[in-house]
Amino acid sequence: MRAGPSQEEVRRHNLGTLLRYVHVHGATSRAELTTRLGLNRSTIGALTADLTAAGLVSEKTQRDTGRAGRPSLVVRPESSVYAYALNIEVDRLRAARVGLGGRILDRREAPRPRGMQVEDAVQPLAGFLREMRDAADDARCVGTGLAIAGMVRRADGMVRLAPTIGWKDEPVGDALAEQVGDVGPMVVGNIADVSALVEHSRGAAAGRDNVIYLYGDVGVGAGIIAGGRRITGHGGYGGEVGHMVVNPHGQPCSCGSRGCWETEIGEYPLLKLAGRGDRSGREAVLGVVEAAMRGDWVAQQAVRHVGEWLGLGVGNLVNIFNPEAVIFGGTLRDVYLVAAAQIRSRLTEVALPACRENIRLRTPELGTDAPLIGAAELAFERLLADPLL
Amino acid sequence: MRAGPSQEEVRRHNLGTLLRYVHVHGATSRAELTTRLGLNRSTIGALTADLTAAGLVSEKTQRDTGRAGRPSLVVRPESSVYAYALNIEVDRLRAARVGLGGRILDRREAPRPRGMQVEDAVQPLAGFLREMRDAADDARCVGTGLAIAGMVRRADGMVRLAPTIGWKDEPVGDALAEQVGDVGPMVVGNIADVSALVEHSRGAAAGRDNVIYLYGDVGVGAGIIAGGRRITGHGGYGGEVGHMVVNPHGQPCSCGSRGCWETEIGEYPLLKLAGRGDRSGREAVLGVVEAAMRGDWVAQQAVRHVGEWLGLGVGNLVNIFNPEAVIFGGTLRDVYLVAAAQIRSRLTEVALPACRENIRLRTPELGTDAPLIGAAELAFERLLADPLL
Repeated sequence: MRAGPSQEEVRRHNLGTLLRYVHVHGATSRAELTTRLGLNRSTIGALTADLTAAGLVSEKTQRDTGRAGRPSLVVRPESSVYAYALNIEVDRLRAARVGLGGRILDRREAPRPRGMQVEDAVQPLAGFLREMRDAADDARCVGTGLAIAGMVRRADGMVRLAPTIGWKDEPVGDALAEQVGDVGPMVVGNIADVSALVEHSRGAAAGRDNVIYLYGDVGVGAGIIAGGRRITGHGGYGGEVGHMVVNPHGQPCSCGSRGCWETEIGEYPLLKLAGRGDRSGREAVLGVVEAAMRGDWVAQQAVRHVGEWLGLGVGNLVNIFNPEAVIFGGTLRDVYLVAAAQIRSRLTEVALPACRENIRLRTPELGTDAPLIGAAELAFERLLADPLL
Repeated sequence: MRAGPSQEEVRRHNLGTLLRYVHVHGATSRAELTTRLGLNRSTIGALTADLTAAGLVSEKTQRDTGRAGRPSLVVRPESSVYAYALNIEVDRLRAARVGLGGRILDRREAPRPRGMQVEDAVQPLAGFLREMRDAADDARCVGTGLAIAGMVRRADGMVRLAPTIGWKDEPVGDALAEQVGDVGPMVVGNIADVSALVEHSRGAAAGRDNVIYLYGDVGVGAGIIAGGRRITGHGGYGGEVGHMVVNPHGQPCSCGSRGCWETEIGEYPLLKLAGRGDRSGREAVLGVVEAAMRGDWVAQQAVRHVGEWLGLGVGNLVNIFNPEAVIFGGTLRDVYLVAAAQIRSRLTEVALPACRENIRLRTPELGTDAPLIGAAELAFERLLADPLL
C-alpha cells in the first residue's frame, strides 16, 4: 500500500502524461490537451514550457483552422530525441532508430541463419547501431530497447530461454553493450510483449484495455494486456501460451512436454502437413497460405488443421481473459487471413458466450514494424515515466 | 491517460490507504503507520483524526511495551462499521455480518438443494439478513456483497451464467434487494474472484503480486491476481479456467464444448471414477479422499486421475501467468492434500522452468470463510477507496 504522491510527484507525473500523450497521438493542440488530460490551461502551459525547455517537445501556432478565436498552440514530440530498437527474430536481425512519437527514422536488417549463436548475432547488430549512430548527428539518444523471441528475466534482461532461436541463459544485452559502447540504458523484452504494447497504444487495439497479441513463428507467444496493463508475471516470463497443453496425446514439444499448442499451430506442423517439411521461415508459411488460396488441397488441409487448433486455443484464452481483442501476429497473421471463418467458428464452440461477447479478431495494424517500434517503447518508458529525470 | 491527482484527491487517497492498512492488518501503532505508509507523523495524525471523527477507526494508548520513550497511539478499525456478506454456493447458502477489519460478527447457513431456483434461494438469504440486522443494534452498515459460483456482469451485477447452480441471466442482487429492503449498496461478484481477493490481502498469498486461486466444486473457476491487481476481463467474466479445453477428445461439458478442464477435475469425474457417481457435494468428495488415504484402490485411482489433470492444467496456467502462488480452494483443496506430490510432478513436466521458479502451491488460509470475507470486501471496497464519501 502506498500513500498518495507529493505535489512534486504529481507535477512529474503530469509531465510524463502530457509527453506520453503527444508521443502516442502526435501533434496535439493545447486546447485538446486541456480536455484530454483534465488539467486547466495554465497547468498545460506550464507543463509544456518545462518539456520545451528540456528539448522534448516543440510548439507552433496552428495554421488557420477557419474558426474564429485565438489560434491554439500545437504541441509535438521532438523526434530528434530517439531510441535504438533491436529485434532478434528466428529468421532475421533488425535494427532501427525510432524518434519520440514512434516514427522509424533509420533502419537496417540482416538474415539470421538458424543456429546462429549469440556472438555472431551481436556483431551485425552492433555494426547497425554504429552506422545509425554516425548518421544521427547531434540528436539525443535516450536508450536502446531489444526485443527477442524468448523468455527474458525482467530484473536484468537476461535471456533465460529462446528455444526457437536456440539460446539459453544468455546475457545478450550485456554482450551487445560491450561491443557497441554507449547507446544509453539497454532494456530487453519479449517480442510478443512489446508488440502488444504498441498495438495497444497506437495500433489495432488502441483504446481497448483487455487485449491478447499472439505472435507466431516456430514457436508461439502472447503479449497480454489486462485492465490496461501488461501481464508479465513474477519474473517476467508470463505469456508462454505456446506451451499450454491442448493435446495431451499429441506431438512431443521442444520444451520436453507433449501436445503444447505450438506443436499444432507453429510453423513446423503447418509446413509438414503441407508436404513442405524441408522448408522453414515466413516465406515458406506464406507459400502454403497462397497455395491454399489457389485451391491446393494438401495446403488447404494443412491450413485447416492449424486453423482448427488456433481457434481452440484462442477459445481457451478468451475464457481465461475475457478480452476485447485478439491480434494475430507473425505467421499466425498469414494463417488468420486465410482461415478466419474457421478460427472464429472453433472459438465460438470453445469460448463461453459471455467471455466472447464484443470480441474482435484482428491483424496487427503496425504490421512487421510492431516489434521494432515496441522495442523502442522499452527504451522510451523511463523517459515517459519521468521526463525530467 | 489521466493526469495526476489534486491535493484534495491525494488526501482522500491517503485516508483510504490508512483505513485499508488497519482493515487488513488490524490494530497498528501510529509509529508503524508512519513507516508503512511513508508519510510523516503529523500527516498520520491528521488522517487518523479525520477517520476517528468519521467513526471509522478508534485510537488508544498502547500498553507498556517495555521500551522507553513516548507511548505510541494504536489505531484500530471500528468493527461497529460492517458489511453483509452472502454466498450462493452449489450446495449451500451462507450469510454473515463482517466488521471492518474482516472479522465475522454473526453468521447463518442453510443447505441449498440442487436445482433450487432464484426465488427460493432469495427467501432464506433475505431472512438471514433481517435477523442479523435486528441483532446489529445501531452499528453502521456500509453495504452488502454477494458472491456466487457463476459469471457476473461487472457493470450491474447480473448473474449471466451459473451453470453448476443452474441459473442464467438472473438479476439475483435486485431480487434480494426487493425482498429485504435497505442493506446498503449491493455488489455482486464471482466466488473465486472474491476468495482470491482475501487470500491475497490477508491469507495464503499475502504480499504476493501474482496469484492464482482455484475454486472447485462441480465446476472450476479461478480468481487471478496479476501485478497486484485482480484480472477480470472486459465484462467481468475472466477466470473461467474450468472451460480451458485440455482434452479435445474427452468428455462433453455442460457448456456445450468437449474436454474442458472441469470435465476431468470437477466433482463429478472424481466421484464417478471412485464408483460413487450417485453422490455429490463436498462431503462426498471428502469421502473419496479419505478412502484413498485409507488405501482404497478405486478411490486412489480416482484421485490419481484428478491429480494428473489438475497438475497439467495448473502447468498451463503457470506458463501463461508465471505466478508466485497457486491456491487450491473448494473441493480442489481436498484433492490437493492427498495428491500434492503428483500434482507437482505433472506441473513440473508441463510448466517451463522459468515460469515455475519460486512457485508455491498452497491451500487457503482463510479456509471456507474466504468467500464470505471476500464478499464483504466487495462492499467495503467503496468505503476504502474514499472513506469520507
